[in-house]
Amino acid sequence: MNRESMILGAFFFNPQGDHRMSWRHPRAPGEEIFDLQYYRDVAALAESACLDALFIADHVAMWDTFESNVAHYANARLEPITLLSALSAVTRDLGLISTLSASFSEPYNVARMFASLDHLSHGRAAWNVVTSSMDEEAMNFGRDSTLEHAHRYERATEYVEVVKALWDSWEDGAVLLDRKSGLFADPGKVHRVEHSGRHFSVRGPLNVPRPPQGHPIIVQAGSSGDGKNLAARHADMHFSMCRSIEEGLAYRKDLNERLRQYGRTQESLKILPGIQPVLAASQAEAEEKRELLESLVPERMGVDLVSSWCQVDLSKMPLDGPLPDLPDEETYDGQRSNLARLKSFKEHNMTIREVARLLTNSGAAPVVAGTAVQIADFMEEWFKAGLCDGFNLMFPVLVEDMFDFVHGVVPELQRRGLAQTSYRPGTLRDKLGLIRSPNSLAVRF
Amino acid sequence: MNRESMILGAFFFNPQGDHRMSWRHPRAPGEEIFDLQYYRDVAALAESACLDALFIADHVAMWDTFESNVAHYANARLEPITLLSALSAVTRDLGLISTLSASFSEPYNVARMFASLDHLSHGRAAWNVVTSSMDEEAMNFGRDSTLEHAHRYERATEYVEVVKALWDSWEDGAVLLDRKSGLFADPGKVHRVEHSGRHFSVRGPLNVPRPPQGHPIIVQAGSSGDGKNLAARHADMHFSMCRSIEEGLAYRKDLNERLRQYGRTQESLKILPGIQPVLAASQAEAEEKRELLESLVPERMGVDLVSSWCQVDLSKMPLDGPLPDLPDEETYDGQRSNLARLKSFKEHNMTIREVARLLTNSGAAPVVAGTAVQIADFMEEWFKAGLCDGFNLMFPVLVEDMFDFVHGVVPELQRRGLAQTSYRPGTLRDKLGLIRSPNSLAVRF
Repeated sequence: MNRESMILGAFFFNPQGDHRMSWRHPRAPGEEIFDLQYYRDVAALAESACLDALFIADHVAMWDTFESNVAHYANARLEPITLLSALSAVTRDLGLISTLSASFSEPYNVARMFASLDHLSHGRAAWNVVTSSMDEEAMNFGRDSTLEHAHRYERATEYVEVVKALWDSWEDGAVLLDRKSGLFADPGKVHRVEHSGRHFSVRGPLNVPRPPQGHPIIVQAGSSGDGKNLAARHADMHFSMCRSIEEGLAYRKDLNERLRQYGRTQESLKILPGIQPVLAASQAEAEEKRELLESLVPERMGVDLVSSWCQVDLSKMPLDGPLPDLPDEETYDGQRSNLARLKSFKEHNMTIREVARLLTNSGAAPVVAGTAVQIADFMEEWFKAGLCDGFNLMFPVLVEDMFDFVHGVVPELQRRGLAQTSYRPGTLRDKLGLIRSPNSLAVRF
Repeated sequence: MNRESMILGAFFFNPQGDHRMSWRHPRAPGEEIFDLQYYRDVAALAESACLDALFIADHVAMWDTFESNVAHYANARLEPITLLSALSAVTRDLGLISTLSASFSEPYNVARMFASLDHLSHGRAAWNVVTSSMDEEAMNFGRDSTLEHAHRYERATEYVEVVKALWDSWEDGAVLLDRKSGLFADPGKVHRVEHSGRHFSVRGPLNVPRPPQGHPIIVQAGSSGDGKNLAARHADMHFSMCRSIEEGLAYRKDLNERLRQYGRTQESLKILPGIQPVLAASQAEAEEKRELLESLVPERMGVDLVSSWCQVDLSKMPLDGPLPDLPDEETYDGQRSNLARLKSFKEHNMTIREVARLLTNSGAAPVVAGTAVQIADFMEEWFKAGLCDGFNLMFPVLVEDMFDFVHGVVPELQRRGLAQTSYRPGTLRDKLGLIRSPNSLAVRF
C-alpha cells in the first residue's frame, strides 16, 4: 500500500515555466498558453513518464501594484479549475492539483467543484488550499487590503473543515437509483452538515455524491507556523521549500511533531520539496542556460518584485544601497515566507540590486543543474535521507526543461528503482499510497 | 451575419431528462450520470445533429426541505462549470451554457471561470445568470433564508456589470508577448475596473485576457418583471416559457419594448422558449409514453413539490381539497414564476392532488408529442410566427427522447431549411448571429 518510489509532480504558476521571465525565452510558448492544446501536450508528456501530478498554482489578481509588472510580467493565464477539468477528459492517470484560495470564495461552491472534478477524473482531484496574501487580491473582493495573517489561517482551517464535512454529507452507498422502489437515495445516508462556526454557516448536504477518493487530496504549501499547522491538521501533501538536507530533515521533524499533536503519522502527509531541475551536459552549458534567463529580466522588474515582497516601494532608493528596514514578521499580513527570505538577505548585507537580481532569477527552490546522473544523484540523496516523499518539479522553462527531465532524468531514476515505470491502478490516493478518507458523518452501528 | 435557421439547444437540469422522475425510467441512465462518458455521448449526439448548445441548469443546494425529496428526487449531480470545461476538450462546435448563481458567488471568480472556459473552448462559453430563490440554497451560504426578490435582481444586475467590465479589462490586442522588447502586455490596454457599487467593490484587472467572444454569451431565464429587465439590459439569449402562439407573441412584444428602453434591438436578444419534444408514431404511443412516466411518480413527492413552490406545507391538508391561500406574489421571495402557475391552478379550482399530479408530470414548457412531421410543424409554426429564434429542447427522458429527436425531427427540420446542416465557423456568437461584444473600457482615439 505504502509508496516506495518518489512522488513526482510537475508544478507551474507561469505556464511558460518557473523562471519569472521564462515567457521571453526563445523556446517558450507564445499565445498558445491560452489554448488547451498546449496543456494537453504538457499533460501527455507527464503521463508518458508516469509523473504523478500536474500542479497549477494560482492568484486571484494581477500582480500590478508596482509599475513594471503589467508590462513585463503580467501573470495573465487560464483559471486552473476549468483548465484541469478540461484535462480530466484527455488524461487517464495524472493527478490534477489546483490551487484555490480559501480567502475569497465560498466553501459550498469549492466543495462542489472539487467533488465534481474528482468524479470527472475518476478520483484524481487535489486541492492546494491557500490563503490570499496580496492586497491586489483583496481589492478584487470588496476589501482595501489583505486579511490579517492569523485570521486568514483560522478562517482557512474552518473552511477546510466545512469542505470535508460537505464531501462526507453523502455517505458511500447513499446513491441507490433503485428504479423498483423509487428510491434515488437512502435518506439515512445523506446528512446535513449544520455547520455554524466563527466564519461560516453551512447547512448542506452537498448536491454531489461522495467523491471517489472520499476526500480529494488536500495539499498545503505555506511554510509559516500557521501554514504548517494547517498542513499537519488537514493536508495529505505538503509542498515545502528547503535548501539543504539538514534543513529538510529539521523541517520534517518539525512537521512530524505537529502531526503527532493531531494524532497523525508521518505516512499520512507526503512532503514534496520544490526543486528546479535543469539538464545540462556540462557546468558550462548549465551556466549558459542560467545566463540566458538572467539576460531576459528587466532590472526594474526585479526591484518591483522586491518592493511587492516587503510592501515598501524601493524604486526611489539607491539600487546599490542596502535594503531598508523591513516590516515585523509577526505582524506582517503579506506572504511571510517571502519576507523571511528578504530578512536573511538583509542580514547578509546584500544591496537592493543584488537582491533584485537574485530574486528574479532564482525561486525559493534550489536549482539542480547537471547531467541526468547528477540530478538523479541529488534527488536520490534527499529522498534516501528521509526528508521527503518526492519532489515538486519547478521547471525554469516549459516545455523544454520538462522534456529534458522526462527523457533524461526519469529513465535514470527508473533504472535505480526510484521512479515508477507504470501507474498503480485506482484513484490518486491509491497511486500515492494514501488511504481513502473515512467518513466523519457516517452513522456507525 | 444574422441567423436564418432555428437555434436549438439541448437543455437539462436532471441529467436523466426533464421529467422529475425520469431517473426511474427503464431506459434512463443509472450511476453513469456521475461519469464524464455519459455527457460525452450526449454532447456527441448533439454535435452529430448540429445542435447549437448544451444548456445545463443548476441549483446550489439539495432540494430537501420536504420529506420525500432526498429519497425520491435527490438532485445530486455534477457541477456544471467543471463538467462543461471537461466537455470543451472533447467537442468542437457545441455551445456550452452553464447556469451559475449570482447570489452566492464572487464576480471576480465567475468572470475568470467563464473567460477561461471561453478560451478553452475557442469561444463557446455562455453563462445563464440566475438568482438563487430557494431557502435551502441561502442556508448553504451563511443565511437563514433567501435574498429578497428585488434586492436579488438589483444585485445580479450589478454583478453582471462587474463581470462584463472584468472581461473588458484586457483589451483585444493587449497581449503582446514580444520577446524582443520584453513586453508581455501593452500596459495602455490593460485596465483596472475600479468598480465601487452598492453590492460590490472590485478593482481588477482580471488575470485572464479578453475572451474570444469578447463577452461569453449571457443567458437569462427568469420571466418575472425583474428577470425580463435583466434580460433586456444584459442578455444575449432568453429562455422563455409560453403555452401558445398568442402568449409567445405578447411575450416577445413585451421584451422588445424593454429592449428599446435600453437602446437595443430584437436581433440582439435571441428568444428560445422551452418545449418538451416526444416523438411518437401515433397518439396512442404518445399517451403510453406519458402514462409510463406518470406511473413513476410517488404521490407524496408531487405534494411536496407543490409545498416547496408556495412555501406552505400541504402534506397535512386534504389532498382532494383546494389549494390553501397562497403568498402574495409581490412580496414573495421564492421563485415567482412557479407561484404564478400555482395561482392560476387555484383559480381553476384544482385540488391539491390534481395540481401535484400536473406539476410533477409536466414542466412549464409544453409537451410537443407526435410524429417527426407533427413536431416539425409545431416548431415551424412558432418560429415563422416570429415569436422566437429557436427552442430550448427539454427532453423528458435522456438519452432516448433526444436520440429520437435527433434522428427523426432534425432531418425533417433540415429538409425544410429550418435547421442547420453544418456549423458556421467561428465562436458561438458567430454561429448564432450575435455580434462580438464591443469593449466598454477600450480607449478610443
